[in-house]
Amino acid sequence: MKIRRSERLIDMTQYLLDSPHQLISLTFFAKRYDSAKSSISEDISIIKKTFKDRGFGIIQTIPGATGGVIFTPAIDEAEAKVIIQQLCQRLSTQDRLLPGGYVYLSDLLGQPDLLRKVGRIIASKYLGQKIDAVMTVATKGVPIAQAVSYYLNAPFVIVRRDSKITEGSTVSVNYVSGSSERIEKMELSKRSLKRGSRVLVVDDFMKGGGTVNGMKSMIEEFDAELVGITVFAEANFKGVRAVDDYTSLLYVEQVDTATKTISVVPGNIFG
Amino acid sequence: MKIRRSERLIDMTQYLLDSPHQLISLTFFAKRYDSAKSSISEDISIIKKTFKDRGFGIIQTIPGATGGVIFTPAIDEAEAKVIIQQLCQRLSTQDRLLPGGYVYLSDLLGQPDLLRKVGRIIASKYLGQKIDAVMTVATKGVPIAQAVSYYLNAPFVIVRRDSKITEGSTVSVNYVSGSSERIEKMELSKRSLKRGSRVLVVDDFMKGGGTVNGMKSMIEEFDAELVGITVFAEANFKGVRAVDDYTSLLYVEQVDTATKTISVVPGNIFG
Repeated sequence: MKIRRSERLIDMTQYLLDSPHQLISLTFFAKRYDSAKSSISEDISIIKKTFKDRGFGIIQTIPGATGGVIFTPAIDEAEAKVIIQQLCQRLSTQDRLLPGGYVYLSDLLGQPDLLRKVGRIIASKYLGQKIDAVMTVATKGVPIAQAVSYYLNAPFVIVRRDSKITEGSTVSVNYVSGSSERIEKMELSKRSLKRGSRVLVVDDFMKGGGTVNGMKSMIEEFDAELVGITVFAEANFKGVRAVDDYTSLLYVEQVDTATKTISVVPGNIFG
Repeated sequence: MKIRRSERLIDMTQYLLDSPHQLISLTFFAKRYDSAKSSISEDISIIKKTFKDRGFGIIQTIPGATGGVIFTPAIDEAEAKVIIQQLCQRLSTQDRLLPGGYVYLSDLLGQPDLLRKVGRIIASKYLGQKIDAVMTVATKGVPIAQAVSYYLNAPFVIVRRDSKITEGSTVSVNYVSGSSERIEKMELSKRSLKRGSRVLVVDDFMKGGGTVNGMKSMIEEFDAELVGITVFAEANFKGVRAVDDYTSLLYVEQVDTATKTISVVPGNIFG
């Protein structure tokens, strides 16, 4: 039974959104709807235009027998800026202030709608770059890594400070915790990352950059390649950071435990 | 400028998929597309039918001035069974066998396409039930909790064995680790769960059920309510489990370290 255009458009939209960064042949869609390839091509043009106009991302058409369509999720810079501005306001409330000048983020890092937005923003930053894996450190980096991984369609790997038996053999590296200057250890399951993988590092919060620097060492240990570093929030840090090439969505400019004020501004992600 | 039906269908599909469990008024869509409410109603009927036919979930129309549409993601039982069967095969490979009879799962729990499916399957299990929060324990439960949270549009909270300063004040409970019979401690940030919340507990792996039972105590400690427990995989356990009312996607029936064989079958989720 032939499927009407309206139904095809709805199903193809869902299919593409659910399969980012995957090449889907027109033949696949033609069979799925028992429709001519020419009709599918027209559908794709309509979807392509709407996705572009609405800022969902880019649909690329690859011609030829081995061709098809690839959907790459993205977000408009203007929309991303609004989201980040709203986040700045939500973070700049005094009840988020914790002893030691830390900022309470756990509630935000558990909200699916926010994570979807953060994932799209970070993924858009690496548009057009090949990424084989997203790396983070347990526990609070995991939601960010998973959110980004959804939009890049690349697996995420979790480095741990306390590896469990359920990880199998691990590789460990030592690193200097930037803020406390202590030597710490982190571990990653040996089979979780292939040699030569191109890795994006993400984390929830960065002060001195010691943890992120530890992940850089880990990537070297696996003969893998660092593509970039993006953190959800960076703190104002007086010393010299262990890493200098990174992007942040938010910048915690000032934390004053005496007056109980926090000031959060956009990070360096949009220059 | 009026928007054509094809474009409306594509945008509404994306909007609904991205906003599960949220009531969206027809007026919102009518304004968004500068179209008559009657046209929007027709669009909704088409989308509703396609979502149903394709097994994406249910679109409910609520009449009246305060009405609108709500999309509830779901998955067909037949489709879910196929996914679980495939998972059984992927897990029943001898290179997953770890010392002590544990099974290596970390790679699967980092794959976005798989997590999307698992999230949909678990969310479908609680169709029609009010869930305010998804609870899990760090670290390996987090990907499952986040995946489910996306489809329920409810936040997830992470119980930790080692709470950090960045959590603020915490509530802690002691629990008996089922397999080792040791007394352990778990903590949850005080502000992460509201009194009276209806909580779904998820985890990656269950043996004796001690950890899950600890989360049950935690829920009581917060004067919250347990809605259900679902684990990704349960192990064949000889003793008496600490919890008896749970569902599992997978059942690790047999692990033989001598012959290096693992046998994984579907869990009890479909009875």
